[in-house]
Amino acid sequence: MARLLDSPLNLKVIESAPSEASQLPMSARTRVGSLRALTRCQELAGGRYSDRPDQLFRPYLGEGYRETLVALHRWMVDAGMTAKVDSAANIVGRYEGITCDAPALMIGSHLDSVSDAGCYDGMLGVLLGIECVATLAQSNRRLPFAIEVIGFGDEEGSRFASAMLCSRAVAGTLGGTPPDIADFAGVTLKAALAGFGLDIEQFETARRPAGSICAYLEAHIEQGPVLENMDMALGVVNSIAAQRRYEVNLAGKAGHAGTTPMELRNDALAAAAEIVLAVEETGLRSEKGVATVGKLVVLPGGSNVVPGEAMLTLDLRSDSDRDAMQMAHAIRKRIEEISERRDIDVKIKECLVLKATTFDTKLVNCVERAVDAVTGECCQLVSGAGHDAMVMTALAPAAMLFIRCRGGISHNPSEFVAHEDADSALKAMLFFVEDFAQSCQL
Amino acid sequence: MARLLDSPLNLKVIESAPSEASQLPMSARTRVGSLRALTRCQELAGGRYSDRPDQLFRPYLGEGYRETLVALHRWMVDAGMTAKVDSAANIVGRYEGITCDAPALMIGSHLDSVSDAGCYDGMLGVLLGIECVATLAQSNRRLPFAIEVIGFGDEEGSRFASAMLCSRAVAGTLGGTPPDIADFAGVTLKAALAGFGLDIEQFETARRPAGSICAYLEAHIEQGPVLENMDMALGVVNSIAAQRRYEVNLAGKAGHAGTTPMELRNDALAAAAEIVLAVEETGLRSEKGVATVGKLVVLPGGSNVVPGEAMLTLDLRSDSDRDAMQMAHAIRKRIEEISERRDIDVKIKECLVLKATTFDTKLVNCVERAVDAVTGECCQLVSGAGHDAMVMTALAPAAMLFIRCRGGISHNPSEFVAHEDADSALKAMLFFVEDFAQSCQL
Repeated sequence: MARLLDSPLNLKVIESAPSEASQLPMSARTRVGSLRALTRCQELAGGRYSDRPDQLFRPYLGEGYRETLVALHRWMVDAGMTAKVDSAANIVGRYEGITCDAPALMIGSHLDSVSDAGCYDGMLGVLLGIECVATLAQSNRRLPFAIEVIGFGDEEGSRFASAMLCSRAVAGTLGGTPPDIADFAGVTLKAALAGFGLDIEQFETARRPAGSICAYLEAHIEQGPVLENMDMALGVVNSIAAQRRYEVNLAGKAGHAGTTPMELRNDALAAAAEIVLAVEETGLRSEKGVATVGKLVVLPGGSNVVPGEAMLTLDLRSDSDRDAMQMAHAIRKRIEEISERRDIDVKIKECLVLKATTFDTKLVNCVERAVDAVTGECCQLVSGAGHDAMVMTALAPAAMLFIRCRGGISHNPSEFVAHEDADSALKAMLFFVEDFAQSCQL
Repeated sequence: MARLLDSPLNLKVIESAPSEASQLPMSARTRVGSLRALTRCQELAGGRYSDRPDQLFRPYLGEGYRETLVALHRWMVDAGMTAKVDSAANIVGRYEGITCDAPALMIGSHLDSVSDAGCYDGMLGVLLGIECVATLAQSNRRLPFAIEVIGFGDEEGSRFASAMLCSRAVAGTLGGTPPDIADFAGVTLKAALAGFGLDIEQFETARRPAGSICAYLEAHIEQGPVLENMDMALGVVNSIAAQRRYEVNLAGKAGHAGTTPMELRNDALAAAAEIVLAVEETGLRSEKGVATVGKLVVLPGGSNVVPGEAMLTLDLRSDSDRDAMQMAHAIRKRIEEISERRDIDVKIKECLVLKATTFDTKLVNCVERAVDAVTGECCQLVSGAGHDAMVMTALAPAAMLFIRCRGGISHNPSEFVAHEDADSALKAMLFFVEDFAQSCQL
């Protein structure tokens, strides 16, 4: 809470009910709201909200997750919403529009975290959604649509070997009751849900009927350095990159480092090194893509042994499926050339192919106008990481707002978002809501 | 024993006492002797001679080592020698010359093994020494010098963190009582020696007086592919390479593989890959040297994370100290250039600097003549690996005979030496003994 205490703002105002704050001018109101969202992220980063005493780890349906639902429920109600936990353990708050039961603009992100996480990943988007509603409710502003704020349970896949389970349930793309997978401790999804009073057989009923949601907006920290490098607080995401993952196994011949002449070697590491540089070069050449070797294991791994085997992973992303495929093709050719020249046996295993997701152009433009109105500039970004918004495109037009995070660092306790940037995000979201009310046909 | 049973030779002859075999012609006698040496290596690769039930692991002063001393003592006596275990637990057999107490030509190698070892590394040299004496004793041939066969206890350093302890004791280069280091199980050298009835305080008395040893000859498998590639059974070692070892630590910046643009990365693995190739190139350019990166560890090592850190080892060997130093210098410059260009923090730690050992030219020529006489050809080799002979140069002129091993494979159960090659080695050793008797001043 140090950051809050350092702030010149009045704590009483921050913790006060919406109605008391309604006398503040709009700009001061969002400053209070955005700071409250940030400090709540920090509050949720430890204590009863984490499953580990010394770091933030909030897996789906853990004890920290339960406490987080309780806190969010209270904050949603405080902001002027009705709130409930759905059959997939998502929390959903609803702020009615001018007419009852109108379709809803859904604003959300995820509640779960990776191990040793930062506190803004996912959570900031949910809390900014709540502040959006709080700001509207303070002046009793109703719109032609309802606003729902949703906190998804499982995005990271940090507990069960399945990611975005909860947004898939809401979007109706699960295709049946989810498989009853177990976590590392052997607790099954069914048992974990039962602990929350939920039934795995009812999981799919979290699905929202077509037409009940008119759009989905997700604010999320960028988790990359692009905005920081362009000196911009916000950006609009127009698509989520295509993703391809491979595993490459190289088998050369181990030998004594002192007795095997250079020209008689089949050094698996030297071959891997060439591949790593070929991957980097392919990424640099691609206009739209990135290419990464993140993992490299060398065997036998003795300092005095010429490496006989190497295993490396390959991660390719691009906003164009074609580009991702071309990168994969170019790298495969290079790997074959390298391994043939060096007389190294090679096996390439395809592990994942995800097609690119393009967000709704109208909605993207609407977010862009909002960002431009608030910050005087905007850029469109491709998200290299997957997000719930990608899943939600199956249910409704979706778009994402990216918020600058310091150094592009995420999935790390040093994750940081400046108050100035969070405040710009909240203002842009509010601008978006008004703009959407005017420009979009419901 | 399968290999022995497959052989057309008569088992009774192989197991017979030297006197019975003396009626065979010389060539048949060495064939029996060399086959016996090989089969004894195989016998010593398991059962009570190994500290592990499923593989050969014979650390210095272990139970397998104890049983090995018992077997060697018997075989030395059978061959016509007197035998004893010295104060460093080396076994030494002596075959007197024409006059009693003449200086000795010492023939030997090591008895200990690495973990999951092959059976010929070290042991074959000791057993061929015994067969040398057995052949001479069969015809009661005495020389102007004695012949001693020695089996050194600790060459590999596979138990205590100190290699060549026993040859250093014999050569008198220990410089005092050895430090009382402990093995992985916490058993100290002192306690392990006491278990053999030996006193660590007396360890150094294994030292042989100057002049008591007139030369040292070590036969050893090559542990590399050079002889095989030249299609030669034997080679003479003229020197042992200089050796330099380094550890290189690289610190870049970890990042999300999907959200960090290529041009904003400080990828520690990409830097390491360039270094691996620079090391290989330096080794290929060097006329005399080899350069190896055997170990590479990448952190955090997630397939979707741009590597932030990398650690690699560097092993440089050359028969010229100057060349080894120049390689180190060239690689250091390349590492600095690479890390500066990529904005990667680098730390280079020097772990080991061993100067090259040049063997006695006269003795090397004497071994060369012997190999040439037996096989019709010879080549001089530099040993990239260290050997007891390197230590023994401090006591007497030394030289080494390398024996081809299949695929250059060693430190591995698939280590293999052909009978033909072992036989050529035994013949060359016998030729050497006679030649040395004629050509060398004692």
